[in-house]
Amino acid sequence: MASSSSAVQQAEVFPDGVTEYVPLRGKKYDIKKPHITDQPITMKNWYQHVNWLNTTFIIFVPLIGTVSAYWVPMQWKTLIFSIAYYYFAGLGITAGYHRLWAHTSYKASLPLRIFLAAGGAAAVEGSARWWSRDHRAHHRYTDTEKDPYSVRKGLLYSHIGWMVMKQNPRRIGRTDISDLNEDPVVVWQHRHYLKCVIIMALVVPTLTCGLLWGDFLGGFIYAGILRIFFIQQATFCVNSLAHWLGDQPFDDRNSPRDHVITALVTLGEGYHNFHHEFPSDFRNAIEWWQYDPTKWAIWIWKQLGLAYNLKTFPQNEIEKGRLQQVQKKLDQKRATLDWGIPLENLPVISWDDFVSESKNGKAWISVAGVIHDVGKFIADHPGGKALITAAIGKDATAIFNGGVYNHSNAAHNLLSTMRIGVLRGGCEVEIWKRAQAENKDVAAVND
Amino acid sequence: MASSSSAVQQAEVFPDGVTEYVPLRGKKYDIKKPHITDQPITMKNWYQHVNWLNTTFIIFVPLIGTVSAYWVPMQWKTLIFSIAYYYFAGLGITAGYHRLWAHTSYKASLPLRIFLAAGGAAAVEGSARWWSRDHRAHHRYTDTEKDPYSVRKGLLYSHIGWMVMKQNPRRIGRTDISDLNEDPVVVWQHRHYLKCVIIMALVVPTLTCGLLWGDFLGGFIYAGILRIFFIQQATFCVNSLAHWLGDQPFDDRNSPRDHVITALVTLGEGYHNFHHEFPSDFRNAIEWWQYDPTKWAIWIWKQLGLAYNLKTFPQNEIEKGRLQQVQKKLDQKRATLDWGIPLENLPVISWDDFVSESKNGKAWISVAGVIHDVGKFIADHPGGKALITAAIGKDATAIFNGGVYNHSNAAHNLLSTMRIGVLRGGCEVEIWKRAQAENKDVAAVND
Ligand code: HEM
Ligand code: HEM
Ligand SMILES: [Fe+2]
Ligand SMILES: [Fe+2]
Ligand SMILES: [Fe+2]
Ligand SMILES: [Fe+2]
Repeated sequence: MASSSSAVQQAEVFPDGVTEYVPLRGKKYDIKKPHITDQPITMKNWYQHVNWLNTTFIIFVPLIGTVSAYWVPMQWKTLIFSIAYYYFAGLGITAGYHRLWAHTSYKASLPLRIFLAAGGAAAVEGSARWWSRDHRAHHRYTDTEKDPYSVRKGLLYSHIGWMVMKQNPRRIGRTDISDLNEDPVVVWQHRHYLKCVIIMALVVPTLTCGLLWGDFLGGFIYAGILRIFFIQQATFCVNSLAHWLGDQPFDDRNSPRDHVITALVTLGEGYHNFHHEFPSDFRNAIEWWQYDPTKWAIWIWKQLGLAYNLKTFPQNEIEKGRLQQVQKKLDQKRATLDWGIPLENLPVISWDDFVSESKNGKAWISVAGVIHDVGKFIADHPGGKALITAAIGKDATAIFNGGVYNHSNAAHNLLSTMRIGVLRGGCEVEIWKRAQAENKDVAAVND
Repeated sequence: MASSSSAVQQAEVFPDGVTEYVPLRGKKYDIKKPHITDQPITMKNWYQHVNWLNTTFIIFVPLIGTVSAYWVPMQWKTLIFSIAYYYFAGLGITAGYHRLWAHTSYKASLPLRIFLAAGGAAAVEGSARWWSRDHRAHHRYTDTEKDPYSVRKGLLYSHIGWMVMKQNPRRIGRTDISDLNEDPVVVWQHRHYLKCVIIMALVVPTLTCGLLWGDFLGGFIYAGILRIFFIQQATFCVNSLAHWLGDQPFDDRNSPRDHVITALVTLGEGYHNFHHEFPSDFRNAIEWWQYDPTKWAIWIWKQLGLAYNLKTFPQNEIEKGRLQQVQKKLDQKRATLDWGIPLENLPVISWDDFVSESKNGKAWISVAGVIHDVGKFIADHPGGKALITAAIGKDATAIFNGGVYNHSNAAHNLLSTMRIGVLRGGCEVEIWKRAQAENKDVAAVND
């Protein structure tokens, strides 16, 4: 605890209250010196751009493992253990690194935190502290230059490129991780990261399979190396696939998307549009029938008294978000349709002109103070020619709206596309009123 | 032709231009005499309420046929012919009676009209003239007392009850069928209806199966009676199932509904919500992947030159209808959600009071001229406690909207539920402006 607090005090504090990220091990880089990423990649310096440590762990080791597997027979006990260990490491990332530490969407007792930190180490994806710092930056600066794994730089970049290639530490947005510096489990795992990885990712699976059923080599290759490979590729999908494939039911301004395939691959982290909108919700899937085993695990831990203070956003807020997105899509759609000439752009026509034009062969019908030319529609009228023809030159407001037939919404829509003018003074009845008024008191009319 | 025109002249003409329906055969009923349906059904008079002719054709004959089928072996040639004849009779109803005559959704050459009238007779569902009159009344008075088969009277009534029980002819809404009286095929079929039925529904299938492969009895039972039974029950579903099962993508004020099951049963008449909204469209299904064999048949006849003037509603109108229905649902949903206290119901608080209350322990934050109490939310804030606490007692409009973090839609929604007051004079900057103005010219301020 003492050491972790002192680390926070060393850190530079910025005007907005966010402290700089300070690695707690290894040589300190000088943030003011020029960085290799300031130079373009050339034939001569490309190898300096590659992050060889990461590349070894993410690409070379898995490749060697895959090739070796050819000579190592698969025992079924080892297979079952590998799958179980896969879930253990996966939950370390999804329930631990992601939902607990990066988003503090629930609180975990010490034993559970140790379990999750161990699982996370077994997945070989960096320390919880480093991972959460980057992930918070990813949420705060989604899709911008400061997003450490912005999908705008390409699907491959967001999946693996950001680790395989060296990144300028100054580029990644700053975020506050003072709460993580207070968690001794996080600080301890960060300080002893390499030891943790070797023990949890390789030694434990090798010894388990070796000592329990004599399959040292299988434990090393299958439950160790290949299992690491699968869990890495699976969880990397949260940064790539989840920002590329699927729907956007809550917000379409940024890239996060919901898709069941991503959820199946990532232990339930596939409802990513929801997640970016409600990051501190301990759920990623909100429907009971959606696949979110990470949520189920957290819920079980809660029943066991290991997890508590599970955060959820109010259902009201979730429904509001969904509704606004549907509304937005609907408004976009509405703008592409023809709703008729706006009333204010139509000429104003007097009642007498309307009647006389209709007598002279125009097929004009007045409905609700608006004059419509139904000429082209008479032959198509579902109610027959006779009825519609009888209304020409008349105020058909009442007969159109139920007097003869209560027309559907569709009929009202169609009618509006036939507008050609607005009746001076409103409906026929207004004209009568006005005529009366004019005889008595002209000043009362406002024309 | 002459006889059909004279029938129209005999008919009473009503003020709205619609002529009374006049049966062209059998004894004329006197519309002014009291009708059996004016009396309630009792143990003594129930048999007078039953329409025995219809009941014989719809219930007794099919029952006898089903029982007889037990002793009649099924030949596969007869089976195939029965299915083909089923489609012939079905199209007579759907493409003929319904889309051509009741809705004039396309025009058909004389040979096609004869083909359809023959198929319609084979289905034993009344003459095209009688069927169309009722069907037009059904569209014009959907779900009301004047609807001949209103589903509001029960699913069974709309399916079969309206035929099995006598109906008061005065009850059914009047509709204009003057166009049908001009069609010699319709008039001829109406006049010679009973002969048409016996020949098309029973004689033709019996003789076909008998003369071609010697299966007289099978032709009578399977291609005749049982085939009639199936086609009747299937097409009756348009009046029952189509008003009872499924979605209402265009209008939910009345009962018509869209469902693929209804479509499968009724040769494509299952998109009935669309159909009631756009009745003179020759299609019932508008998507290519929806099942509407009646539409396909009409389209093929068009290619063969037998059908022409196929009517469709503009896609623009269809999309508008769909959009308005989604909007309606959305508005209903919106009304059930909490959108925060409306601004006009909030107290007006001065900038100085806001600042001093915040200093005295209230967790108040001003965003866009509105004061919010974030006290209960600080611990849950996804952006951490530090940032949100730093904004207390301040105008956080800029930092909330991108200065520090560009909050999502969800955050804006949540914020509105925390409203507790409106800042007198707007944002902080307005307060400053006013202070300046007050020193110079008090009259310029409108408070
Ligand atoms: C003025 C322009 C008119 C338009 C754009 C129009 C449009 C329509 C449309 C789209 C329908 C199909 C059913 C529906 O969607 O509700 C319809 C049906 C009908 N219309 Fe009109 N109509 C017009 C005028 C009239 C007038 C003036 C009358 C009567 C005097 C009338 C009487 C009917 C009747 C009785 C039906 C029912 C037909 C049926 O569904 O079988 N319409 N009209
Ligand atoms: C005043 C009431 C506030 C509300 C209701 C609120 C709400 C939220 C919500 C819902 C999120 C989740 C991400 C999102 O939906 O956009 C969020 C994230 C964030 N908020 Fe606030 N916030 C408030 C004030 C502030 C203030 C004043 C600041 C900064 C001074 C701030 C800084 C942040 C940051 C940096 C994040 C990103 C955290 C992450 O996604 O990792 N918030 N806020
Ligand atoms: Fe993301
Ligand atoms: Fe996240
Ligand atoms: Fe209907
Ligand atoms: Fe219809």
